[in-house]
Amino acid sequence: MQITQTPSGFTLSLKGRVLIDHSGDAPCLFVGQGDARMDMYRGNFDIEDYVTERSPLRYARISGKTISFSAAEGQPVRLVLSVGESTLDFEAPDRSINRVWLRIAAERDEHVWGGGEQMSYFDMRGRRFPLWTSEPGVGRDKTTEITFKADVTGKSGGDYYNTNYPQPTYLSSRRYALHLETTAYSAFDFRQEQVHEIEVWAVPERIEFFAAPSFIELVERLSLRFGRQPPLPDWIYNGAIVGLKDGVNSFERLENFLAAGVKVSGLWCEDWVGLRHTTFGARLFWDWQANDERYPNLRQRIAELADRDIRFLGYVNPYLCADGPLFVEAEEAGYFAKNADNQTALVDFGEFDCGVVDFTNPKASDWFAERVIGQSMLDFGLSGWMADFGEYLPIDVTLANGVDARLMHNAWPTLWAEVNARAVASRGKTGEALFFMRAGFTGVGAHCPLLWGGDQSVDFSRHDGLVTVICAALSSGLLGNAYHHSDIGGYTSLFGNVRTPELLMRWAEMAAFTPVMRSHEGNRPAENLQIDQDPEVLSHFARMTAIYVHLAPYLRTLSAEAVARGLPVQRPLFLHHEDDPATYTIQDAYLYGADMLVAPVWRPGEKDRTVHLPSGRQWVHAWTGQAYRGGAAVTVAAPLCQPAVFYAEDAAMADLFARLRNL
Amino acid sequence: MQITQTPSGFTLSLKGRVLIDHSGDAPCLFVGQGDARMDMYRGNFDIEDYVTERSPLRYARISGKTISFSAAEGQPVRLVLSVGESTLDFEAPDRSINRVWLRIAAERDEHVWGGGEQMSYFDMRGRRFPLWTSEPGVGRDKTTEITFKADVTGKSGGDYYNTNYPQPTYLSSRRYALHLETTAYSAFDFRQEQVHEIEVWAVPERIEFFAAPSFIELVERLSLRFGRQPPLPDWIYNGAIVGLKDGVNSFERLENFLAAGVKVSGLWCEDWVGLRHTTFGARLFWDWQANDERYPNLRQRIAELADRDIRFLGYVNPYLCADGPLFVEAEEAGYFAKNADNQTALVDFGEFDCGVVDFTNPKASDWFAERVIGQSMLDFGLSGWMADFGEYLPIDVTLANGVDARLMHNAWPTLWAEVNARAVASRGKTGEALFFMRAGFTGVGAHCPLLWGGDQSVDFSRHDGLVTVICAALSSGLLGNAYHHSDIGGYTSLFGNVRTPELLMRWAEMAAFTPVMRSHEGNRPAENLQIDQDPEVLSHFARMTAIYVHLAPYLRTLSAEAVARGLPVQRPLFLHHEDDPATYTIQDAYLYGADMLVAPVWRPGEKDRTVHLPSGRQWVHAWTGQAYRGGAAVTVAAPLCQPAVFYAEDAAMADLFARLRNL
Repeated sequence: MQITQTPSGFTLSLKGRVLIDHSGDAPCLFVGQGDARMDMYRGNFDIEDYVTERSPLRYARISGKTISFSAAEGQPVRLVLSVGESTLDFEAPDRSINRVWLRIAAERDEHVWGGGEQMSYFDMRGRRFPLWTSEPGVGRDKTTEITFKADVTGKSGGDYYNTNYPQPTYLSSRRYALHLETTAYSAFDFRQEQVHEIEVWAVPERIEFFAAPSFIELVERLSLRFGRQPPLPDWIYNGAIVGLKDGVNSFERLENFLAAGVKVSGLWCEDWVGLRHTTFGARLFWDWQANDERYPNLRQRIAELADRDIRFLGYVNPYLCADGPLFVEAEEAGYFAKNADNQTALVDFGEFDCGVVDFTNPKASDWFAERVIGQSMLDFGLSGWMADFGEYLPIDVTLANGVDARLMHNAWPTLWAEVNARAVASRGKTGEALFFMRAGFTGVGAHCPLLWGGDQSVDFSRHDGLVTVICAALSSGLLGNAYHHSDIGGYTSLFGNVRTPELLMRWAEMAAFTPVMRSHEGNRPAENLQIDQDPEVLSHFARMTAIYVHLAPYLRTLSAEAVARGLPVQRPLFLHHEDDPATYTIQDAYLYGADMLVAPVWRPGEKDRTVHLPSGRQWVHAWTGQAYRGGAAVTVAAPLCQPAVFYAEDAAMADLFARLRNL
Repeated sequence: MQITQTPSGFTLSLKGRVLIDHSGDAPCLFVGQGDARMDMYRGNFDIEDYVTERSPLRYARISGKTISFSAAEGQPVRLVLSVGESTLDFEAPDRSINRVWLRIAAERDEHVWGGGEQMSYFDMRGRRFPLWTSEPGVGRDKTTEITFKADVTGKSGGDYYNTNYPQPTYLSSRRYALHLETTAYSAFDFRQEQVHEIEVWAVPERIEFFAAPSFIELVERLSLRFGRQPPLPDWIYNGAIVGLKDGVNSFERLENFLAAGVKVSGLWCEDWVGLRHTTFGARLFWDWQANDERYPNLRQRIAELADRDIRFLGYVNPYLCADGPLFVEAEEAGYFAKNADNQTALVDFGEFDCGVVDFTNPKASDWFAERVIGQSMLDFGLSGWMADFGEYLPIDVTLANGVDARLMHNAWPTLWAEVNARAVASRGKTGEALFFMRAGFTGVGAHCPLLWGGDQSVDFSRHDGLVTVICAALSSGLLGNAYHHSDIGGYTSLFGNVRTPELLMRWAEMAAFTPVMRSHEGNRPAENLQIDQDPEVLSHFARMTAIYVHLAPYLRTLSAEAVARGLPVQRPLFLHHEDDPATYTIQDAYLYGADMLVAPVWRPGEKDRTVHLPSGRQWVHAWTGQAYRGGAAVTVAAPLCQPAVFYAEDAAMADLFARLRNL
């Protein structure tokens, strides 16, 4: 980065972009102290900071590549920035500092994206985003009844910024990206015209900047920085992963799907570990081994499925219930996080207690990778699983590495991903066994081969329904997470909110144009419509899997592109159309690779969709063949079975796309 | 105050109490800058502060009675405190400062009360209280449906600290009081064990301290500081003020009250100005003159009522509707607050616009006092009125005195009270004409002869129902407001929440033991039960007015005590029992003067009450005559008609109290 002295301070620039502009009157740096209250309620956090000091550091002394900041000339140096090629390293001689605010130069018309996997706002400009992994909330909109009820009953309503996967990284329309290297609680504040403010509840290690002439190149660089995923496994192209959790009945019900023409790549039974009955209803038994009672002869059945090219998938999370056999093994070996009394910390998950496997202890994570995921899952025959949770590390436990749990909380999802990835690698199954996670943080993409968008409500709501999955895919995709998918039909059914046939069908329509189609019975299967309970929904689902399979050759090229260049399968329109500013804020449509544009219907009752077609290409409507010149909005009919999908007339695979009309 | 240098700083003490303890490591003073967003929605405010600087002033140089603070030795002086007998005057050489935080030494077991008229928490310890006059909110509890709906539909749900009458003054159980002299937004933060933090969004003028050997003396001193009220008017002892707003029917309905034995001192018709019909329903016509259509021959009727010793009361607020004749007069004279274009600022009150009479213009306030209140109200024959509003001064208007409306907003209620009081005084009717206000701020008590508790919901809810009126009376009473009362039955009926007979009766039971009994038909009379619609409720009301009239000789002594000593009629138990710490947090019972203890039933369905009887006296249960030794909690039956009321066995008027049993 280039340091330029100015009459009253300095600027820091990267490839011609002024990123920091400091003067005594408008300092770039503030430091101080805060005393935060953080209360966790089942993965939902109530956090309030009491800032006791926020002092501007007006005086900056530059010496070579080092900038020393103090309150005023002659006052003690409180913070030192070391300027690298494209980095700023932080060091605080003042040990009392536990809050840092850094201001980045902003432009009035600038857009910013990223922040991990954001569910509500793709363009983050104009809002403040705390970055702390947690439950995303139910409803996520303080004006809705569902959010209100979730808040009152479980402090779980959430808000626009809550996400399983935050990441202190953003891309700017000025064609640079900023990454804050810390696992501390942080916040990006994009509310001001002149500056973005980066807030950190610690002295961060570093800020990394990336600049590139185009968005594509920026994403390539970020994906190298944060990790690229292996290719999609070959078997995934066979069709959808059907999620059933009906014990041994799941196998019979799968036959109904197949009989209806559904193309199936896998059967996913999260209840493979058996159930526990609580007053809240049936819960999984959190001991990660096959349950012979609920799934008799499971290995035989898995083998029989495999003969038909159908994989079997399960479920795991980083906890072990205190009444299961794996808990005993881990307890004897001392693998759990400890409480204040140096005993195993037990976390109440609702009428059952669990230990938290301490992944900062290499022996504990080795054990979990080998004994649990390796032996009881992979060796047993599982081809994949939901690797659930990761957001719940309690902030009051004691960990083996001696680091404050408040600093490890954000790091946990990536540790969890690493344990899963290591287990898969130990069996030589990288790119073959497929696990999917909702939690994330910096670096998760280096280990996690597939994100899933978390637990949307079973509805069309703006902040917790179908449309949020697009925002999630686009924001996380820019940070190097090439593969994203979601629960078809959503997950969370509470307070009488249940799935409609329309919702299930609209969700399946979107999923057909994502890397992975996977259905889920939801949290309350009995109260919600299931795909195989309605002939229209089932037949619609079969058709969508046919579309997915038809497009498999195209998806293979996107997966190859992800491996080679780190480009996500689902992309914001601007990624390939940066000269078309109308594309910069679109978050309810996406490019599926460079050559297809998908605009799912995400409002109930809607029969058509209006979508902006980016400039520079001719776009052919997939179902009618009508061509439109890019650069304007068009409205097309979008009845059930025909989501608004377009392909570029000059696409290499235009013939394949054209054949969608005959499917 | 005494300044004592310590090895690392200084202390400030008043009569042996260390109130400020400063050192370089634990500074007492922080200064900086903030940039607040303040949005007003019909008197409800959405306020968010962005604090850009909060710098500790660690270095204090003492020179005589002046303490100069800077960030460090040798750094510029940013703030200077001048220490007086019992005051701290503020001056900021640094003109950039617009936020000041001062820390007051606190004790772990300390209690604090005051803050103006607080509705939710009498003992303020453990919470933070912003002090900004506003609507108090509907529901005032984020866990209730009503609050949620009010928030969503009108941003009007409110919270525990919202009040029409805030005041930056508190009393401490350490037997001192602190008053912050400013009209800027401020906040008292009582959440920390070691310090109370006073936050001001300006450089305040002064902090005043008061110390006294007893709470009684402290209250006497505060009442002298903030103003004492005149005695209650003689006519008030005749019974209740019956609130009806039924046009000329009000007079006929009043006869029903009288026929049922209700003792009546006045008839209050807020619709005396006529109605306006909007899509929200009937609203008052905001032009403060009798409406001949709705009330034909009103002067004749007022005179006839007077012959029967019944007064007539009306309604006024500080706005004038743009389609009324008074608006034209004020507009021609230029008496309204201006907008950014220097035109009269018009405020939308829901399908009608109003001008805001600019009380910082002496001619405008003279005109309002003389022309409106003097001529059209007092000279017309009104004996009192609700002087509504005062909290709504928009923060973006331009005022005649040139002061920022954000600094005048909190001052407005007191200006409004002064205009009313001046009008009353101009007719020689001080202590005779009775107006009542909900809005307040520092100094309101010098002008306003009677507070009313604002617009409670028509229910028993913890934060917006009957019980909140007690908290309101006790907190405001400690600051010199001797007289408090409320709408019998509450006011706000929204979202299907309507009055029950039980609520009306329980409220009347409480009101019988307050300075003034006054009924109100509520915001939606047609949807809510009215006293005269239910024979049981009417007869119960009659009985309560009989109790009120029976106790009039006692109430007269309390009014005399208020005039002489500033003691409120309704008093917290600890005021006369400071050696009994169990009394310090009680907010659902009160002393009615020194000799009666009233514990209203404030929960639905409750048939008895448990109440702590303060130590040192024998307490006689009013309805059974049973005596209890103070110093413990007792439970007594409290069926309808028999609220839990006790009197001291040794009271001067014990005979009068004993005769309640025969009433």
